[in-house]
Amino acid sequence: MIQIRSAEILCVGTELLLGDIVNTDAAFLSRRLAALGINQYYQSVVGDNPARLEEMLTLALGRSDLVILTGGLGPTYDDLTKETAARLMGRSMYMHQESLDRLIARINRYGFAITENNKKQAMMPEGAVVFKNNYGTAPGLAIEDEEKGKIVILLPGPPRELEPMFTEEVEPYLKKFSDHILYSRCVNIFGMGESKVEDILRPMMLASTNPTIAPYAKDGEVLLRVTASGKTEDECRALCDRVIEKICATEVGGFVYGVDAGSLEGALVSELIARHLTVASAESCTGGYVSKRITNVSGASEVLEGSIVTYANRVKEQFVHVSHETLEAHGAVSRETAVEMARGVRELFGADVGISTTGIAGPGGGTPEKPVGLVYVAVSTKDGEDVRELRIGNGLATREYVRYVSASNALDLARRAVLKL
Amino acid sequence: MIQIRSAEILCVGTELLLGDIVNTDAAFLSRRLAALGINQYYQSVVGDNPARLEEMLTLALGRSDLVILTGGLGPTYDDLTKETAARLMGRSMYMHQESLDRLIARINRYGFAITENNKKQAMMPEGAVVFKNNYGTAPGLAIEDEEKGKIVILLPGPPRELEPMFTEEVEPYLKKFSDHILYSRCVNIFGMGESKVEDILRPMMLASTNPTIAPYAKDGEVLLRVTASGKTEDECRALCDRVIEKICATEVGGFVYGVDAGSLEGALVSELIARHLTVASAESCTGGYVSKRITNVSGASEVLEGSIVTYANRVKEQFVHVSHETLEAHGAVSRETAVEMARGVRELFGADVGISTTGIAGPGGGTPEKPVGLVYVAVSTKDGEDVRELRIGNGLATREYVRYVSASNALDLARRAVLKL
Repeated sequence: MIQIRSAEILCVGTELLLGDIVNTDAAFLSRRLAALGINQYYQSVVGDNPARLEEMLTLALGRSDLVILTGGLGPTYDDLTKETAARLMGRSMYMHQESLDRLIARINRYGFAITENNKKQAMMPEGAVVFKNNYGTAPGLAIEDEEKGKIVILLPGPPRELEPMFTEEVEPYLKKFSDHILYSRCVNIFGMGESKVEDILRPMMLASTNPTIAPYAKDGEVLLRVTASGKTEDECRALCDRVIEKICATEVGGFVYGVDAGSLEGALVSELIARHLTVASAESCTGGYVSKRITNVSGASEVLEGSIVTYANRVKEQFVHVSHETLEAHGAVSRETAVEMARGVRELFGADVGISTTGIAGPGGGTPEKPVGLVYVAVSTKDGEDVRELRIGNGLATREYVRYVSASNALDLARRAVLKL
Repeated sequence: MIQIRSAEILCVGTELLLGDIVNTDAAFLSRRLAALGINQYYQSVVGDNPARLEEMLTLALGRSDLVILTGGLGPTYDDLTKETAARLMGRSMYMHQESLDRLIARINRYGFAITENNKKQAMMPEGAVVFKNNYGTAPGLAIEDEEKGKIVILLPGPPRELEPMFTEEVEPYLKKFSDHILYSRCVNIFGMGESKVEDILRPMMLASTNPTIAPYAKDGEVLLRVTASGKTEDECRALCDRVIEKICATEVGGFVYGVDAGSLEGALVSELIARHLTVASAESCTGGYVSKRITNVSGASEVLEGSIVTYANRVKEQFVHVSHETLEAHGAVSRETAVEMARGVRELFGADVGISTTGIAGPGGGTPEKPVGLVYVAVSTKDGEDVRELRIGNGLATREYVRYVSASNALDLARRAVLKL
């Protein structure tokens, strides 16, 4: 049995070298390999050039047990990953009937007839393990070299084909080479910075080897990945849960919004559904971002009454009944306006929870008194209002970042209000 | 003078190997290198491990004239890119006073005192060219080896530091090594697929070597990059403009929404501003995505009156006056409802242009008659209404993709209506 001690990823595609696309495949595969407990020390990208591909694949096979290639499995003449890998591993090609049948069926479904070019996608190296492609025409494959203890896996480049193929076909295949499993849970934290989280948890992180605890920052949030190694999933899960309980007992716990919750909007929608409550938002600086994120969640229609973007002051007065006096006295970007917007939109749509945002997203529009990044988010329920003042990015953040973090804070404030209802 | 015939990118960071972050730095640098006319044949990633970094840097310097490293310039003990590169290039380190002064000023501004760890960031290899960091604490640098004809450039990992440093400091530095310039323009196309665009333009693409024409698909759009090489920007621009004119004279021209327009929302907002017109949206399946994208554009406040998310049928009737009969007879996802929503929201906010979306975003909610991906987008102006039926993704697209493409179509439909006003 081949032993996989290390893997590396080799992505093939001139479009990557031109920067036309971002290499999300490498990130996806890295995360999945880490979850499988397979170490990865190198990643590379080469263009659609057989000589350089052969050179890089030779290098990769020299230093890693498993090499995963992506891209270059298409039907055109410059797609040559499969042919190059087969030659290097000393395999001749044959027509794989099952793949050909699937290919013909798929192409017919699109209303086309199969061309000679297409058929190339069903050719396979002798002895290869074939992975079905349920989302495109190029099957994936694995070539094993028992003698040298090496495996080469080839996957199609498009993420919507590669990702399901990996989770559905490649992961079960790879698990056969391992005698233990790794199991991860992700603790979602919002409102406390990564370095603060690390400071508090460092003793625990250093003391814990199984499970391991690894924090990382992403889009203004902190994720803690807790990963256990063991014989069974039940055993691993118990190890993880014990550590997560300890984490939640520290100061960090007050900022944990979920475990494997996915996102702030997902957590909010779940809490609303559980309590049969509805929500509505009135947005100024976020311009619909809060509502867009709530409706990212499939099933949001159960809880979202409606939302309104009140960009103009006139609209704030007319629709969500911010008083003219408030706008005159405090301005549109103020604690008072945010509160009246939240209350007003809750009433407008007859929702249980009203959310609002108002602020300076930049890059223009800032003043010394109200700089870019000053944002107020508020929430209103039958029990009253709550408001949060934000100062995002010290004038250095992009418009997108200011708006994203504002929406995150609004969602978090709403979630906290919902928990009290 | 060193001649840069080829470059490669070597990103340093264990977080990349774990998939915790996506390598947007490589994509950004690749695009910029391509724009500078510098060929790139390899990209690699290694973790924060000095031995493997040294091995990869040695390999890279053996096959490329310019190696750009990213990451590992932080203050902590595992940030060692600079030290490793200096050792490999035979340079000792010294304290770079100007960098130290800037570092102290920045850290003081944050309200902290400088630590010994921080000072490491101001240490530089002898003879290095230093690039200022206006968005963080780690300066970038270039080490030139005249004898071997090699250059190593080190940049900080965070995109918000790397990107401005590259355009503001590194690009002017690199241009000194070249006797010609490359100049690119980007033709924005929406509503025609990549393969159709290629079919039509293939003769032109094959015949044209300066400028070159390269199409690529991105987020449901097609971009044509037209790149000219020459002595001056004026010369290059003239070459590009002549080809772009020819492209616009083909069938493709009907789908071109701009040149260097950036985005559909940017193009719409520009047209609205130029005509002193205002817009409002009523969104169902996009849930605020149209409005969010319009307000991505700085200055959108000039044209956006307001938007409303009418998720519930009740809200469609009450606020944008979709008639009960229409909803009964045709359903919420219908041509008729979309048109009434667009008209209703235009009246509600007193805007010149009303935009609407209604459809099945999935993954649930589809029926054989109205499958996931069926979306109607409509626009209303004083001249009447227009509506577009979309069938997105054949049931295979994600919720995010269905919603994004729906919003794109709504923005495009609105832009076309505005051009006629």
